[in-house]
Amino acid sequence: MSAAHPRLSINQATIKHTTVAQAIEVTKAAGVQAIGLWREQVQEAGLDDSVRMIADSGLRYSTHCRGGWFTAEEGPARVAALDDNRRAIDEAAALAAAGAEGSRAALVIVVGGLPDGSRDLIGARERVRDAVAQLAPHAEATGVQLALEPLHPMYASDRSVLSTLDQALDIAGDFDPAVVGVTVDTIHLWWDPLVTDKIARAGREGRIASYQVCDWKTPLPADTLLARHYPGDGVIDFETMTRAVEATGYAGDIEVELLNQEIWDTDPAEVVRRTIDGFNTAVAPYLSR
Amino acid sequence: MSAAHPRLSINQATIKHTTVAQAIEVTKAAGVQAIGLWREQVQEAGLDDSVRMIADSGLRYSTHCRGGWFTAEEGPARVAALDDNRRAIDEAAALAAAGAEGSRAALVIVVGGLPDGSRDLIGARERVRDAVAQLAPHAEATGVQLALEPLHPMYASDRSVLSTLDQALDIAGDFDPAVVGVTVDTIHLWWDPLVTDKIARAGREGRIASYQVCDWKTPLPADTLLARHYPGDGVIDFETMTRAVEATGYAGDIEVELLNQEIWDTDPAEVVRRTIDGFNTAVAPYLSR
Repeated sequence: MSAAHPRLSINQATIKHTTVAQAIEVTKAAGVQAIGLWREQVQEAGLDDSVRMIADSGLRYSTHCRGGWFTAEEGPARVAALDDNRRAIDEAAALAAAGAEGSRAALVIVVGGLPDGSRDLIGARERVRDAVAQLAPHAEATGVQLALEPLHPMYASDRSVLSTLDQALDIAGDFDPAVVGVTVDTIHLWWDPLVTDKIARAGREGRIASYQVCDWKTPLPADTLLARHYPGDGVIDFETMTRAVEATGYAGDIEVELLNQEIWDTDPAEVVRRTIDGFNTAVAPYLSR
Repeated sequence: MSAAHPRLSINQATIKHTTVAQAIEVTKAAGVQAIGLWREQVQEAGLDDSVRMIADSGLRYSTHCRGGWFTAEEGPARVAALDDNRRAIDEAAALAAAGAEGSRAALVIVVGGLPDGSRDLIGARERVRDAVAQLAPHAEATGVQLALEPLHPMYASDRSVLSTLDQALDIAGDFDPAVVGVTVDTIHLWWDPLVTDKIARAGREGRIASYQVCDWKTPLPADTLLARHYPGDGVIDFETMTRAVEATGYAGDIEVELLNQEIWDTDPAEVVRRTIDGFNTAVAPYLSR
């Protein structure tokens, strides 16, 4: 077993069937220095207890996952979604404040797909811009960065009408980079012929809130949401993407977030070990520090 | 049953389990005026007999499907792929010449994915450009237009490293538009935030060889290749895309190409009827003629 890279962070989705306490425990036990938790587990443990556990752990807090799902049209569902995002912002602020130095108060945002029965993709995208504008003041007041995550276009109808890095940057452009940034995840962006140019733009504009790495391979599983693999197990050219992110000066944590049934069925400690190995082999060689 | 729109063309993939004779028969019987055949079926029937059947049918020939699959590195497989594409060009020329007035000698090109074991996406994309350059003289000599088809990014690793319309246009830009054009297929491009701009560019540059329509909905089937639906059965905004194509002045046939197991298991005559209805409902209202 190799040593964990100092910039590696375990995103709790990778070890989905853990409580906050268990996730922290396996992460620390493996020598990993950073973690990003999911809201469902934080709420199950309670925010105060989660904050205390993060503070006691000595881990950095890399991102909070996740906000968004605010493409609904005007009405109670939209109001409720925005209120829920304000709570997520508060959680991100509290957890990051409890984390070790270098923690990041970044709320990853998956914007949501088309409302049921709708074909109005353009309208849904406009409502994303509107939702970000509505949330930005609360994010600014609490020192949290909204980390807009473009998702792979295969999720454009049901999970994220935000599909490219340029689209995310165009929305972010209306706001201070400390308030609205972007999440760069290899699995969502690897196919884009202009991905390195777009990463360079994200860097120039000071928007990279998080760099996440996981791999792509085919055939895709029946549930395409779970099509994520340890870095190095698929076809993504991590050298090109990682060097592009490094060239922007991004020096933060790098999360591995794996949604994959087989990985979820594996012992979390073993998953973290395999994550460390994959990261060391496929990603770490291209990091400048 | 509504009357077939005069610009509708049945792509044989929609009625996959037909011979050339059967495909022509059900297309004509439904009052559809145009057809695009697939190479496998043409070769099974024999090229000369297929040409004769197209000539006798009175149908327009809209596209020939398909060439490409030329991302292999230098070696016998690449040479064989390019030779096979030259034969496909010859087939397209012969079949289009036999079709009714308004037929198009366009060879749809699906470029292929990453070679086995490769992560070199940039290199594979360069080899696409090289292959087009190698095929262009033969296409020009025979009067065939290579219709580069960007495929949805979910196929980027295994079917098409050509993923966006701009990427196709950038490659096409080195050649005469009569020799290298692009295929605009709603299912591959609908998610792109810049799709209407890119369609406008394709029009300005005189590159639209074919407009193909089919719909997207989730959940995707286990085999994502078969994720295509009758126009109107899913979430694609055909008004926006069709108006964008119309605005370029494209006045050619519009193919419906459905890869879908349930559709393949349906009687071809019924499939053509449902295709006519879907086209009339979801696409025809936005056509200027």
